[in-house]
Amino acid sequence: MFSEFGLIRRFKKLLRTRDRRVRLGAGDDTAALAFGRQNLLFTCDSVVEGVHFRLDYFSFYEVGWRLASANLSDIAAMGGKPLAALITLGARKGLNEKNIFESYRGILTLLSKFNCPVVGGDIVRSRQFFLDMAMLGVAGEKLFTRSGARPGQLVVVTGELGRSLLGFKLLSQAKKRPLSILTEKHLRPFPRLLESGFLASRVKVGAMIDISDGLSSELSHLCEQSGVGFEIEEEKLPLHPVLVKEARMLGLSATKLALSSGEEYELLFTCPVLEEKKLLSWNRGRRGAPFTVIGRTVKSPKKIFLKKTSGPTRLVQPTGFRHF
Amino acid sequence: MFSEFGLIRRFKKLLRTRDRRVRLGAGDDTAALAFGRQNLLFTCDSVVEGVHFRLDYFSFYEVGWRLASANLSDIAAMGGKPLAALITLGARKGLNEKNIFESYRGILTLLSKFNCPVVGGDIVRSRQFFLDMAMLGVAGEKLFTRSGARPGQLVVVTGELGRSLLGFKLLSQAKKRPLSILTEKHLRPFPRLLESGFLASRVKVGAMIDISDGLSSELSHLCEQSGVGFEIEEEKLPLHPVLVKEARMLGLSATKLALSSGEEYELLFTCPVLEEKKLLSWNRGRRGAPFTVIGRTVKSPKKIFLKKTSGPTRLVQPTGFRHF
Repeated sequence: MFSEFGLIRRFKKLLRTRDRRVRLGAGDDTAALAFGRQNLLFTCDSVVEGVHFRLDYFSFYEVGWRLASANLSDIAAMGGKPLAALITLGARKGLNEKNIFESYRGILTLLSKFNCPVVGGDIVRSRQFFLDMAMLGVAGEKLFTRSGARPGQLVVVTGELGRSLLGFKLLSQAKKRPLSILTEKHLRPFPRLLESGFLASRVKVGAMIDISDGLSSELSHLCEQSGVGFEIEEEKLPLHPVLVKEARMLGLSATKLALSSGEEYELLFTCPVLEEKKLLSWNRGRRGAPFTVIGRTVKSPKKIFLKKTSGPTRLVQPTGFRHF
Repeated sequence: MFSEFGLIRRFKKLLRTRDRRVRLGAGDDTAALAFGRQNLLFTCDSVVEGVHFRLDYFSFYEVGWRLASANLSDIAAMGGKPLAALITLGARKGLNEKNIFESYRGILTLLSKFNCPVVGGDIVRSRQFFLDMAMLGVAGEKLFTRSGARPGQLVVVTGELGRSLLGFKLLSQAKKRPLSILTEKHLRPFPRLLESGFLASRVKVGAMIDISDGLSSELSHLCEQSGVGFEIEEEKLPLHPVLVKEARMLGLSATKLALSSGEEYELLFTCPVLEEKKLLSWNRGRRGAPFTVIGRTVKSPKKIFLKKTSGPTRLVQPTGFRHF
């Protein structure tokens, strides 16, 4: 949090706390507070009309769904479980009761899949439609953080990448709302709590993060905070066949889409090489999104290299969604 | 929460949960979740420029302070302690770094008095300046709720009443910002966590609520949820001498001010008659705001009566701040 804004680095100093209970504070996606032998997770996300979404291609239901997804994904990234949520809705003129109801329905439908109740909130008058959601979660003693990656580990993602950005491109250019497996990923992303729960209980995870700003951005966060480099193999990036086909038709690079697509809400993590067999057994079980090994962590330099299928290995610059 | 909006009753049905951990959910000021042998408190409050405040008489620091006060007061009303806070700031054009910094400083200054760290949040672009704060707190097994009042109990408030509304009137009418003990209460209210902590550890509280919408409104909430009536004695309403003087000069009724002044963030509670001696001992200690007994709960009818100093007892209709 506080990452999307240039001046935030200075605020971080202001927000620094000596409170020993705070295990992760401002600067991480989710705050963690030591509480008995567990960790309380505390996170929030907000969406503003015209900034994060437009109502010409988002239904109110989807606005709610996606916000819930962002919060649940933050909890998943820490290896935690959601406990409860609060919602603040800024209602502008022109919104009617049904619109507000539909926004809540989108939120509640997704939250209920993870037994997370909405326990309160507020509706305030405003000139712009916005939703702000705070979520409380719980994790065990061990937290998944951005700083736990070590050299020589596997780099793994859940699901596949790139659809959210391509879906967004299609939605924002189209006159009529095109519904497909591409736009669906942008409008109704599904958070990886099931996968995260498996990892928390079974796998020795190094570092973990959720892909909200794009793979390359998230890798650079892990670089910075874990002090390792990454070698990613282009041919291993998991891509949906429809994405590959559509990208080719539009003359877009599927690799670039996979690297820069934000709001995927897939998990990105590292783990020791020996853990791979557990990941494969999960994949065989087909209970959720599959895990795909996309590369390795390296000791130095602390950069991201993309080993191309053809041509030389190249350095990746983080590109992804910037809110400001 | 969700109380300021007519259609909320219908949402409540939507938000109803069967989750056994949820001890208080949507409809109360603060949600409470059973967690081990304690209760986690979870609340949020938001302020929108032009709706809840105007920058011609609020400094950015005060906007932040007051929002923090609202959240802390919600935690105080449950007999809890704050653990951590998250802040979402909607930044419109025209706000500069210093403005944002000052808003945070107002928040942090007040939170630090209660050892409550800000552990994250977000800054988003918006057309209207707003702040939304979520707060996590903790309380013991016993919760102070709106439904715990019984007939024959004392009705008690902390501090004194009416200054916030009179301060607001002075601020919104004045050309030059008048600073006084009246406006100070409106701009920098101080939450009653110290007093609440004393009550939680020492006093058998019936029902408790914080005065955010006005005494008469809060009494009517207690009426509704506890199923008791109230007899309030006009001459016992605690009034600041400056308020009495200023109200007289302006031709306003100090009693009316005390009944309808919102955002006082004083505590209103009921307790058995025998507890009064503990309250008096607190008052002698002068460590915080004093407690004042203002009346009694009665069995029926479930209405609020004001016993006037002169003239007949009259029925009080709830009046107070309405956000919508």
